[in-house]
Amino acid sequence: LYQIPGDMRARPMGAAELERRRAILQDWASSGTLVEVADAPGGPLSIESHAEEMLCVAPMMAAVDARRTPSDAVIIGCFGDPGLAAMREVLDCPVIGPLEASFHLGAQLGARIGIVTVLDSVVPVLDGLVRSMGLSLRYAGAVAVDVPVLQLKSEAATLAERVADVASPLVQERGADVLLLGCMSMSFLAVAEGVAQLCGVPVVNPARCALKTAEALLSQRLTQSRRTYHKPRKAIALGRQAALKGDAQ
Amino acid sequence: LYQIPGDMRARPMGAAELERRRAILQDWASSGTLVEVADAPGGPLSIESHAEEMLCVAPMMAAVDARRTPSDAVIIGCFGDPGLAAMREVLDCPVIGPLEASFHLGAQLGARIGIVTVLDSVVPVLDGLVRSMGLSLRYAGAVAVDVPVLQLKSEAATLAERVADVASPLVQERGADVLLLGCMSMSFLAVAEGVAQLCGVPVVNPARCALKTAEALLSQRLTQSRRTYHKPRKAIALGRQAALKGDAQ
Amino acid sequence: LYQIPGDMRARPMGAAELERRRAILQDWASSGTLVEVADAPGGPLSIESHAEEMLCVAPMMAAVDARRTPSDAVIIGCFGDPGLAAMREVLDCPVIGPLEASFHLGAQLGARIGIVTVLDSVVPVLDGLVRSMGLSLRYAGAVAVDVPVLQLKSEAATLAERVADVASPLVQERGADVLLLGCMSMSFLAVAEGVAQLCGVPVVNPARCALKTAEALLSQRLTQSRRTYHKPRKAIALGRQAALKGDAQ
Amino acid sequence: LYQIPGDMRARPMGAAELERRRAILQDWASSGTLVEVADAPGGPLSIESHAEEMLCVAPMMAAVDARRTPSDAVIIGCFGDPGLAAMREVLDCPVIGPLEASFHLGAQLGARIGIVTVLDSVVPVLDGLVRSMGLSLRYAGAVAVDVPVLQLKSEAATLAERVADVASPLVQERGADVLLLGCMSMSFLAVAEGVAQLCGVPVVNPARCALKTAEALLSQRLTQSRRTYHKPRKAIALGRQAALKGDAQ
Amino acid sequence: LYQIPGDMRARPMGAAELERRRAILQDWASSGTLVEVADAPGGPLSIESHAEEMLCVAPMMAAVDARRTPSDAVIIGCFGDPGLAAMREVLDCPVIGPLEASFHLGAQLGARIGIVTVLDSVVPVLDGLVRSMGLSLRYAGAVAVDVPVLQLKSEAATLAERVADVASPLVQERGADVLLLGCMSMSFLAVAEGVAQLCGVPVVNPARCALKTAEALLSQRLTQSRRTYHKPRKAIALGRQAALKGDAQ
Amino acid sequence: LYQIPGDMRARPMGAAELERRRAILQDWASSGTLVEVADAPGGPLSIESHAEEMLCVAPMMAAVDARRTPSDAVIIGCFGDPGLAAMREVLDCPVIGPLEASFHLGAQLGARIGIVTVLDSVVPVLDGLVRSMGLSLRYAGAVAVDVPVLQLKSEAATLAERVADVASPLVQERGADVLLLGCMSMSFLAVAEGVAQLCGVPVVNPARCALKTAEALLSQRLTQSRRTYHKPRKAIALGRQAALKGDAQ
Repeated sequence: LYQIPGDMRARPMGAAELERRRAILQDWASSGTLVEVADAPGGPLSIESHAEEMLCVAPMMAAVDARRTPSDAVIIGCFGDPGLAAMREVLDCPVIGPLEASFHLGAQLGARIGIVTVLDSVVPVLDGLVRSMGLSLRYAGAVAVDVPVLQLKSEAATLAERVADVASPLVQERGADVLLLGCMSMSFLAVAEGVAQLCGVPVVNPARCALKTAEALLSQRLTQSRRTYHKPRKAIALGRQAALKGDAQ
Repeated sequence: LYQIPGDMRARPMGAAELERRRAILQDWASSGTLVEVADAPGGPLSIESHAEEMLCVAPMMAAVDARRTPSDAVIIGCFGDPGLAAMREVLDCPVIGPLEASFHLGAQLGARIGIVTVLDSVVPVLDGLVRSMGLSLRYAGAVAVDVPVLQLKSEAATLAERVADVASPLVQERGADVLLLGCMSMSFLAVAEGVAQLCGVPVVNPARCALKTAEALLSQRLTQSRRTYHKPRKAIALGRQAALKGDAQ
Repeated sequence: LYQIPGDMRARPMGAAELERRRAILQDWASSGTLVEVADAPGGPLSIESHAEEMLCVAPMMAAVDARRTPSDAVIIGCFGDPGLAAMREVLDCPVIGPLEASFHLGAQLGARIGIVTVLDSVVPVLDGLVRSMGLSLRYAGAVAVDVPVLQLKSEAATLAERVADVASPLVQERGADVLLLGCMSMSFLAVAEGVAQLCGVPVVNPARCALKTAEALLSQRLTQSRRTYHKPRKAIALGRQAALKGDAQ
Repeated sequence: LYQIPGDMRARPMGAAELERRRAILQDWASSGTLVEVADAPGGPLSIESHAEEMLCVAPMMAAVDARRTPSDAVIIGCFGDPGLAAMREVLDCPVIGPLEASFHLGAQLGARIGIVTVLDSVVPVLDGLVRSMGLSLRYAGAVAVDVPVLQLKSEAATLAERVADVASPLVQERGADVLLLGCMSMSFLAVAEGVAQLCGVPVVNPARCALKTAEALLSQRLTQSRRTYHKPRKAIALGRQAALKGDAQ
Repeated sequence: LYQIPGDMRARPMGAAELERRRAILQDWASSGTLVEVADAPGGPLSIESHAEEMLCVAPMMAAVDARRTPSDAVIIGCFGDPGLAAMREVLDCPVIGPLEASFHLGAQLGARIGIVTVLDSVVPVLDGLVRSMGLSLRYAGAVAVDVPVLQLKSEAATLAERVADVASPLVQERGADVLLLGCMSMSFLAVAEGVAQLCGVPVVNPARCALKTAEALLSQRLTQSRRTYHKPRKAIALGRQAALKGDAQ
Repeated sequence: LYQIPGDMRARPMGAAELERRRAILQDWASSGTLVEVADAPGGPLSIESHAEEMLCVAPMMAAVDARRTPSDAVIIGCFGDPGLAAMREVLDCPVIGPLEASFHLGAQLGARIGIVTVLDSVVPVLDGLVRSMGLSLRYAGAVAVDVPVLQLKSEAATLAERVADVASPLVQERGADVLLLGCMSMSFLAVAEGVAQLCGVPVVNPARCALKTAEALLSQRLTQSRRTYHKPRKAIALGRQAALKGDAQ
């Protein structure tokens, strides 16, 4: 399950975009993997701030909770990994954060990781996440293309070049050896290869990487440690949140 | 404004507890400071997990947004500082996190900080926050008394001793020089002084410390940097969340 | 007590300057706080080097020791926090270091702290102090206006602009989200607000911040941990230093 | 290609062991993946020291160089990742280190990683590698079962219990949330699941994890950054090493 | 010049002790090295606290300043390296700190360094210095024998055993691979070899190590960087301090 | 013994170069020190990559092992310290790494260390070594003059200027307070003094520094800790490597 924490269907053409992403993910998947994509009714239209990282979690968890059958693994469909630890506590299957997965894979490709994201407002979000992951020694920093999430698609034709423009100084001057695309909407616009060629470093697509990490964990029958992500003792009021969500439709 | 992110009034005696806490805070306040206390309808009953740290943010932000007049400063009434960065983005007044405030004050009292919290499930939450604050070199770790938040008050008589029992090895063996009470409900049960005497180290009460930090920031006319906490470009859907909340009543 | 470790009265107009600073501090103080300001006979005229940071400690401690009545709290009147740990060992009241206090408060306003000080020679002093505080992950570095302490006042009219000139690259290129004025004499020249406007980030005045931290600690009845700042077993020869001081007058 | 840096066929039953490991890896592989296993003639019989980590690299690189057709990806068949950076420079395909791969995957399962290896002499090797990976904040340390590599197989029946015995204090007292098997020979003795049950934390099998990482990289068409692993300007004398190897047969 | 920052001659038998230490140092010196030993009139009798670390600096600097001919190199005769940066600013010859020198040499002998000092009150002094040196990842901690400096000599017969008693858990449980004697008075009591045998790890004698470091720097014609230790722009009032000292005799 | 891990005599004029270096080292040595210089038959011609750092270790260890009489101390004649830990395990005498020795000495001369090496491909090797030494907080980075090792000597006349050209921005912009020559061949071309004058910071010659460190360790009778560098339990197949080497001649 690729679970988008925003309310994709509240966007014009949102349902079609959900299906478009599903098809791309399914295409990336190994044989035997079936990808589902869902969004979170009541979630933000896009996630570009600390605030939206927080506000999307309750709708996302309610959406997951409302599903009839549990998934084998859940990927959080936002690069800031909102609600990652929360979902790991509540769910029994592996939960994958695209930032976490792509940073840890990227760190196997080069010494220092740089990230290209959408807006300046996301940079301190990412800086804080990298500190919290304890990976600051492997971090070259983040830069922004200054294109809001909702405009990314309309600028798809030139996006790889814009990303490479802001990423080049990150590589040349600040020492990034590997780049991560820092936004899931970028991940579905086929820019990684172009940026890699223009910048001369590997570029990790976090959606694809998260999918492969999910497959890898499932294949190894690994799931999160209950010493870090304790099963909550008392019931978490997801039903209540779901009620909130339901009422709001 | 001391803004509790949980739904205090959904507890038996909740409104009285709100008033009790307000009176204690007002008593700690400097002359000229007027304390208000609010809770967050739709929030969790208590916050003891990564999940509840996340799920409380939307109701808390909606509750703050629904207030008629803006406050001069907002203290987040939960030790895990849920929604701290989000609130700093959205609000123009200083927003204070009790963990952040008490860790930074405690670090001026001794070299290594230890925290005593309620349940084991909170320990990795705190560990992650300290890493994200970049303060791991000043951290001796956290321990838990193994009393859920909602039982704390009924065990108030012996709480200081229980806290001291689990904190002593943190001081003696793991090198904590200063202790923080790691739960806001503990902060209103008058245990800090007792623990300090039993353990022989200063004990910071995070509610009181957050209040003093709020006063200090207001007095110095300081508020959060817009380079870390960018003002969101597009409207944050707090009204929508508020609607959700309203519908659920 | 705001205890200047230098010999202010050895400067022309020094006594008047002591009184000027006292009045400013008193103006910043909460009602109920009475500020005293003292200097340290035999201390340096200004403190702009590792050497002066060291040489001022004995005269400062002797000056404090020679006072008839103990103070409720002592602020060290130099941004390099000279003798901070020493004073905390010897005294029973809280001792506040302006660098420590303003860094820890600034870290609650933004992710990375930058400092503007007087001379290049002070920069490595500050770098070392930040390392020793374990806060390197939160530090953007320090820059100098290249104005010696003793000339600051005569350049007060243009000081805010000069500070902003050197601080801007620290903000724009090296990522400082919050600035600290890195010299106590700057703190009494009303530049913080101007620099904040010119640079677009909060600017912490360390004298004012130290005062508020002192009030906050007193209000919470907190003082330094005896596990970090042990009470010396044998008498510290302050009387002897005081004698030295006396003889030199 | 799973490339063992030791001289497996110099051991009694070595060729059969090569085939046994190949079959296990092939069983773990995704459909479409063909696993080859090779050893390194002239390499050490086992690798349990800094010295053997170094001495195995030349024979391993010569063995890889002597192959007729290049592999799609190479896994280094030793937990200490000997020659990892060297192989990444020389080869054009992804090169996977089992320690690196399993640490980075394990870090997505819990906050702190512990390792169980064979002998005390390996512990400082691993400590140094973790420091060099910049991951010390996520490391709980390593412990040893005190069984040399060449005896592991004969103790297979009780190995899971022995591992759990030494790992338990690492989990309970030193805070490991996730365990890695710290030796490739352990990886082929089916102990991971047993240790996980006995210790109550996820246990990553580094051979299996490295295989899945290889598949993930290939599927994403990612390979090492030439900014970290520069293509050597002058020919690396692998032929010469191969000659040495050939002469020694 | 081995410059003791305390007032050795104020102790009974102090002058003889100065001579005894000089003879030992001369014995350790290379041919061609002439060792002088001086103390600091007006300094503390012993240095066992943050306060004494500070108070000894002015007398020590005055003592050095009062010498007729400059030395080729100066070793600070106290393990806490008091005034190290200050002396490096003021003097043109290399200045060696025994803690710094022995930690950096010890780090070439093993991964983690442990220190055995005199009193608990010194431990946080050392912890802070290690943080300020940026070497926390290589530090196993410090322990104390609980013998004041002035009693060390009378307990010389059993000192090696006492040191080994407190150092053993530092080695066995906290992972120290190398030990430093954490007090200069210990350095002249011939305990290093005994402790090394009892604990099974190398033991660095900081006095001897500082001497060898001084010789190494002189032989390489290296001295401190003026970018870290700026030459003070204005005259440092050492004469004034010297006057203080003179008056006090 | 200054043990070059490359095959010096395979270069034209190699034997003369061995003798030239021996004479220089002997000139730097203290009276009483006898320097021997050896190379490693079968090793690389020069070492400028991760791969060559690895491939040189076996020939170097074989060369050391083949010597009739053990040396009192061994210096690894390559700045990347190849095989340092391995040699420390196998040998009973002190083994000195020039990078390690010069970084630890340089750190006593200034706050941040910069390195000037030969090629860009060496920079990530050095970055990784500094991380593994736990010294990242003291590291300003490395730069390359872009001259391969084998061309250095022919460019000796202008080498100091070229080094200073690339080192100046490392000093001025990235804050290096002390420089290390990052290649042993540079160490024998008399550039350190010239670079120091041009850049205004101390420049450590790693060959000379390693020699002085060897003398210092011998004089103090210190050798590596067996807790970090365990004596291998089973025989390390150096004889076998030696055989390989012999056959290849």
